[in-house]
Amino acid sequence: MADAPPATTNVAAVIPTGGMTALTPLSATDVTFTGGFWADRTATNRGATIPAGFRQLQAAGTLHNFELAAARARSGYRALGIMFDRPFPFLDSDVYKWLEAAGWELGRAPDDGIRAMADEAIGLVETAQEPDGYLNTFVQVLAPGTRYRDLQWGHELYCVGHLIQAAVAWHRALGDDRLLLVAERAAGSVERELGPGGRVGIDGHPEIEMALVELFRVTGDRRHLDLAGAFVERRGHGLLGNGRFGRGYWQDHLPVRDAPEAAGHAVRQLYLDAGAVDVAVETGDRALLDGVLRRWRNMVATRTYLTGALGSRHKDEAFGDPFELPPDRAYAETCAAIASAMLAWRLLLATGEPECADLLERTAYNAILPALSADGTAFFYVNPLQRRTHRAWAEAGDGARKPWYACACCPPNLMRFVSSWQQAIATTDADGVQVHQYAAADVVAGDVRLAIETDYPWEGRVAVRIAATPDRPWQLSLRIPGWCRAASVAVAGSPVETVPSGDRSVRLARGWRAGETVVLDLDMPPRVTAADPRVDAVRGSVALERGPLVYALETADLPDGLLLEDVTVPRDASVSTIARPDLGPTVVGLATSWSTAAGATPIGAIPYFLWGNRGDGGMRVWIPLEGS
Amino acid sequence: MADAPPATTNVAAVIPTGGMTALTPLSATDVTFTGGFWADRTATNRGATIPAGFRQLQAAGTLHNFELAAARARSGYRALGIMFDRPFPFLDSDVYKWLEAAGWELGRAPDDGIRAMADEAIGLVETAQEPDGYLNTFVQVLAPGTRYRDLQWGHELYCVGHLIQAAVAWHRALGDDRLLLVAERAAGSVERELGPGGRVGIDGHPEIEMALVELFRVTGDRRHLDLAGAFVERRGHGLLGNGRFGRGYWQDHLPVRDAPEAAGHAVRQLYLDAGAVDVAVETGDRALLDGVLRRWRNMVATRTYLTGALGSRHKDEAFGDPFELPPDRAYAETCAAIASAMLAWRLLLATGEPECADLLERTAYNAILPALSADGTAFFYVNPLQRRTHRAWAEAGDGARKPWYACACCPPNLMRFVSSWQQAIATTDADGVQVHQYAAADVVAGDVRLAIETDYPWEGRVAVRIAATPDRPWQLSLRIPGWCRAASVAVAGSPVETVPSGDRSVRLARGWRAGETVVLDLDMPPRVTAADPRVDAVRGSVALERGPLVYALETADLPDGLLLEDVTVPRDASVSTIARPDLGPTVVGLATSWSTAAGATPIGAIPYFLWGNRGDGGMRVWIPLEGS
Repeated sequence: MADAPPATTNVAAVIPTGGMTALTPLSATDVTFTGGFWADRTATNRGATIPAGFRQLQAAGTLHNFELAAARARSGYRALGIMFDRPFPFLDSDVYKWLEAAGWELGRAPDDGIRAMADEAIGLVETAQEPDGYLNTFVQVLAPGTRYRDLQWGHELYCVGHLIQAAVAWHRALGDDRLLLVAERAAGSVERELGPGGRVGIDGHPEIEMALVELFRVTGDRRHLDLAGAFVERRGHGLLGNGRFGRGYWQDHLPVRDAPEAAGHAVRQLYLDAGAVDVAVETGDRALLDGVLRRWRNMVATRTYLTGALGSRHKDEAFGDPFELPPDRAYAETCAAIASAMLAWRLLLATGEPECADLLERTAYNAILPALSADGTAFFYVNPLQRRTHRAWAEAGDGARKPWYACACCPPNLMRFVSSWQQAIATTDADGVQVHQYAAADVVAGDVRLAIETDYPWEGRVAVRIAATPDRPWQLSLRIPGWCRAASVAVAGSPVETVPSGDRSVRLARGWRAGETVVLDLDMPPRVTAADPRVDAVRGSVALERGPLVYALETADLPDGLLLEDVTVPRDASVSTIARPDLGPTVVGLATSWSTAAGATPIGAIPYFLWGNRGDGGMRVWIPLEGS
Repeated sequence: MADAPPATTNVAAVIPTGGMTALTPLSATDVTFTGGFWADRTATNRGATIPAGFRQLQAAGTLHNFELAAARARSGYRALGIMFDRPFPFLDSDVYKWLEAAGWELGRAPDDGIRAMADEAIGLVETAQEPDGYLNTFVQVLAPGTRYRDLQWGHELYCVGHLIQAAVAWHRALGDDRLLLVAERAAGSVERELGPGGRVGIDGHPEIEMALVELFRVTGDRRHLDLAGAFVERRGHGLLGNGRFGRGYWQDHLPVRDAPEAAGHAVRQLYLDAGAVDVAVETGDRALLDGVLRRWRNMVATRTYLTGALGSRHKDEAFGDPFELPPDRAYAETCAAIASAMLAWRLLLATGEPECADLLERTAYNAILPALSADGTAFFYVNPLQRRTHRAWAEAGDGARKPWYACACCPPNLMRFVSSWQQAIATTDADGVQVHQYAAADVVAGDVRLAIETDYPWEGRVAVRIAATPDRPWQLSLRIPGWCRAASVAVAGSPVETVPSGDRSVRLARGWRAGETVVLDLDMPPRVTAADPRVDAVRGSVALERGPLVYALETADLPDGLLLEDVTVPRDASVSTIARPDLGPTVVGLATSWSTAAGATPIGAIPYFLWGNRGDGGMRVWIPLEGS
């Protein structure tokens, strides 16, 4: 199955093997949430979201379609939605994303229920595959004889990409190679069609690029890396034609290494760029990495919502103009935020730049988690920053998270994101250990072990106890988030030191003793944030933030008779924190005295990620300044 | 062909015959533009737009499809666009709308070129019709055996509606009943399928309702009115199902007489409401008329752009939330503005309320004319109020008006609108003559003849000479536009009288002598307009207006190196008029000293309807106030 598999015992979604990488991921099995925010979120994902997802895949018929393919059936295909008068062709990927999430979870700890579901799904996937490796239930059941004919919209390579990612997760997390065998045969089918000696084509929806690089990392088979590289290089030359939204829609308008700005369908752009980073890192292609970085920085500066969300346009799920960031009509697809997190993580590994971890944090709390209901079994696909009290008929009563979607890409994407979040906490390099995201966790990094205690994101104090350490000196690096204006650090027994303003990390290089504790204090006052004045849609408005969290006003917190739209922010607003036990035992809300027709009115704002759990009222992140 | 055709010699698109109408339209043949703005626009429409439109219908294959239907062909269908993987099914309507425009023009004066084109088109339409009256080239050629099976998306009744409107125009304007025979047979086919004893169905796209009422008015055949009424009543009960955008999309969510707000696809809502007014007026159904009026007033107050444009959402070409009026992402389809003008005209006739004429004026100048290039041969389908200098890749270099569209509903709709605009100038009632829209024109209203001279919309002075008058007293009514804050009126030989503030018309009832002149002076200073504060998208911005015209800033007028996005309006801006011979011999621009990084900078603003004729730069109507 491989000539020379790289030696690794790591369990992680991305494990660069080339030399062009700044940081090395830890093994997910070496990071354990010990309580608090992310332990809760992870438990909900494992206990509620993933099992509910399997039942939805059953109910929607998505699993049944694999049975049909296995039986060589030619009818009975099930899909909740249609595209261009035919069922959605990409539903297989929902199963693969679910399997990836299940793989990470089972790697964390056994679970008989999830294990049984996963075994059933893997069995279906195995039996559905054709003898020559081809696997796509839509084509097998509904359109036999049309393999790889509809590269524009067929999503065949996209689905194989998700299959590979699930297979890599099962290989790394569990040493279970059932899916990897399927994935390698499916990749072989793709390579015979589109690899050396085959057609020069690319998929309308990038995804397989990053998956093939991972398959190379797992198997050592360079053909996978080469094909990933070829897919990246072929793109941008009009191979896909204009489709219905123009060639920018699928990033086929300019070469990947040249395109200066994020364009077109947001998820496509971000999966593509994640794959391009993977290719660049493995091939040592600095120019390609720089091209992605340039585009990413432009995107962060001009096309990213305060929440980290991306892709403002409903029409084609696309990036808009620079600074075209309407809060009400934000499309802000959940999958785009997840894709952005995947890209930011890869860029962080490649460059070590804290700005990448900043965006990852902002995105996780404010663009990805908001898509999940408090109980973990309902999902937003679209994530606006404003919902009016009185809405268009189509949306009235229809603003709640749903348990599933006809196009169900987002829910299982959320599952795999949460199930692999512990991978984002820390990394290592030659100097030591870097903590990027703060959570109560035990972290093992070789012969270093850290016991991190914190109430983050509710409080800014992070205590890192050195639970085990080698005798040689090493460097502990703690990220100072971009939102933080004042931080201090104390090593037990030493005076508290103020972190110089502008420093993006605290680096403590020394010989450590087991039991020493480093306390990082991130000052976390409420912030009143104004947008770049070029964001036309929120001119004269401000948002409230605290720490990594964006806050929102919701109708549920207003006095009776007061309309959300009649609340403004006084110019001299003083914002304070307030416990919100009604939303959760540790939730910190914000409160200020707002301007209303009835005069100054104290109203609480809630973390944006908790919005939409209390009925169908209005919500807004950006609130007009009084008199604007 | 008719039991008792109503006696009329009127030439007009809408001729109410019921008693429930406040005003009676003049015959278009009795209104002649004698120079100035609308004479120019009409000449361009006749000399350039309509002939170019015929060539586009040839080139696109839209006419050829009638040949195919006539030949009973089963292949070769031509369409520039596809919907749900099949050619657009509604293209026949483009020919009918063009024929309607040609009919009005030939009624105005002969034209050998247009006549030959029209005769060719009429011949094709005649021969394409099936012996039993069915006519829809898409179904005939591509989907025989599926007549009336796809009421949701097939647009069969929609196309018959446009056929009827063309036929009515040819009947009234030219006494030429070739199309009327085709239209009656086509209506008969619809009535056998969906009329008494037939299926209970409605078309996904309203349009046939108003057409059937007109067919009743022309033929006196009450079955047409009854079916129109049935289509209105059937709607709103879920007959069409949810489709892909929900039942509000095609106004099938609430009964037409009850729905409190405009909802869904804008053109559908507005055509439906125009038809509902026609039904109400002919059947004396005051409750239905009141229902439409209530919805219309809500729409004007909450969902109408400053320009009069409607339907802000790209995704489903739909109305959004109340006050969801983004300038950059305004969809604002040209056809929606035309449909709004058709509705406003019907409401004006039914109620006599000046607010209807106000909206008609605002819409004509600022939502319909902007869709036409200066030379009349290129068209906007989408009409944003802002175009950024630096845009998303998809739009870069793609912001110009196009000579035709795959979905070509808007261009021939513009043609029929301009060709019938003279019908909107004046009406009569028992008391006399009402002038609603100001243009240099000769107006005959029975034994009254008016010679109107004005440079409107560039100047607010309107001289109405009584060219002929009966001996009996009668009332001359002149509308005071809603935008006008100060007006005076002078009858030759009498002192100038100030029109009391708040008066919506000047009514001069007296015995007139031929040769007397009434001079209305509408004060027309530049205005700095703020939006309703509930329009989130333009908070902290203002627009410039003068008279009926909305103005815009365009990159072409900026000093080199200055970005449109860096221009703001000083709080104390003083705006003045300025001649703009570069844009046309009579064009009045506005100018003020704007705030820029380089300090106070004088820049001219142009009438919005002239935007986009000078390259691909930025444009904006709403401009931020300094310091907002």
